Amino acid sequence: MADKISGANFQDRRDFLKKTALAATVGLTASSLLSSSGCSATESAGAGSCRLTETNNVVLFQGDSITDWGRNRSKENTPNDSQCLGSGYVLLTAGALLDEYSNTKPIIYNRGISGNKVFQLAERWDKDCITLKPDLLSILVGVNDFWHTLDGKYKGTLETYQNDYRSLLERTKKALPAVKLVICEPFVLKCGSVNQKWFPAFDGYRDAAKKVAAEFKTIFVPFQSAFDEAVKNAPPQYWATDGVHPTVAGTHLMAKTWLKTAFGIKT
Amino acid sequence: MADKISGANFQDRRDFLKKTALAATVGLTASSLLSSSGCSATESAGAGSCRLTETNNVVLFQGDSITDWGRNRSKENTPNDSQCLGSGYVLLTAGALLDEYSNTKPIIYNRGISGNKVFQLAERWDKDCITLKPDLLSILVGVNDFWHTLDGKYKGTLETYQNDYRSLLERTKKALPAVKLVICEPFVLKCGSVNQKWFPAFDGYRDAAKKVAAEFKTIFVPFQSAFDEAVKNAPPQYWATDGVHPTVAGTHLMAKTWLKTAFGIKT
Repeated sequence: MADKISGANFQDRRDFLKKTALAATVGLTASSLLSSSGCSATESAGAGSCRLTETNNVVLFQGDSITDWGRNRSKENTPNDSQCLGSGYVLLTAGALLDEYSNTKPIIYNRGISGNKVFQLAERWDKDCITLKPDLLSILVGVNDFWHTLDGKYKGTLETYQNDYRSLLERTKKALPAVKLVICEPFVLKCGSVNQKWFPAFDGYRDAAKKVAAEFKTIFVPFQSAFDEAVKNAPPQYWATDGVHPTVAGTHLMAKTWLKTAFGIKT
Repeated sequence: MADKISGANFQDRRDFLKKTALAATVGLTASSLLSSSGCSATESAGAGSCRLTETNNVVLFQGDSITDWGRNRSKENTPNDSQCLGSGYVLLTAGALLDEYSNTKPIIYNRGISGNKVFQLAERWDKDCITLKPDLLSILVGVNDFWHTLDGKYKGTLETYQNDYRSLLERTKKALPAVKLVICEPFVLKCGSVNQKWFPAFDGYRDAAKKVAAEFKTIFVPFQSAFDEAVKNAPPQYWATDGVHPTVAGTHLMAKTWLKTAFGIKT
């Protein structure tokens, strides 16, 4: 179809639109245009203030298996497609944004990869983040940074996680000064693979993510609080069978929490 | 996990719960129990009044490819699982219901099959509907009943569609007297495969679905009106690339419309 969103063509179209906008705004500097791109939240404005106000704003979801969930890697350059987005919280969140912002037609990618820790995001960051030039970047990472230490195969510490996360965000801000950041809290449910060995150590990773979010003045999505509230209505495994990977109910809770925290959209 | 929802075990559990409820309510007749199962909407109560008030109420989505969308047929007896539900409007709708009704833990199935017309639903109705004993049954069918006539390979008429639909609902009500019905309006967007040949003939199928819904006093979900409104913000192909199968944006619009119409849930 003529208006189909697909990788290369769409990037061309977006560049064309940006150049057109530039040509039409003589007197504005390139940097002022850049700073107005992305969602309109000032970074310190906090919860609920994100908007996708420009045509074809790019939104990128990054993370591990919880983000990756069901996506078809061969469709990763076909933004907005259900196979590109997977069938987890990214699909539900993207659906709401694409519907809510149909007038500005956002371009939404999912580039989560199962098992990833922060250093693995860093290894593929040029290809899977910087090149896509996101206006809004949402990251959910941390559960594997702890989980994979339990069998002794991964030697990273809490300090590794925090320092790697900080470096990743510094690098991101340097390459994409206008990008708006949404940092998601790693979370677990107390069931399945999540036993007493996880605590209190895992709580440190949640705190570290929150600390990094505060340092970079990003929006912080409190997934753990949302699940802690949810288990008052149904047991942990209703929300995440193995304690880590959310069920469809958990996926909806995540999307709802993300949309409310970042955009003030109530679902 | 102990509480995992899976085919046979879950049916056993549901039967156990129903028997327990029966034993605990001596004095109530079986028929009064039956009539209180499912959503609490009286059938004539119309929009927004559905609820899933009983433990393990069964919800079934039936239809064609728009319902089927991305589901894994080998998981069709694993309700609530994302592979069972697919990645279309059923997933988004189910996510909201599973989250909203976490206290009563609904059991949600998707049994849509691509290309189906009403008579093909009828052919598999015992296996794919009656046996599941849904408390709430949502049906979206009709686009193929018209579309497949265009190349002359299917000879059914508008009258066939309406009569087949009526027969299917009569049979359903006979087998499942307490089932609550949600009839969804077939819809198209004017793009892709949908050209002038579709009109006004296709409008007759929408009208027929509405007429049947009125006859059986079911809830009627006005998808076509929702899309007609949506194209004021973005072109038809933004909502359904080929005019028939919704994009992720269209999928969200459908889930939003369904949830609002059937349950009064605003997203």
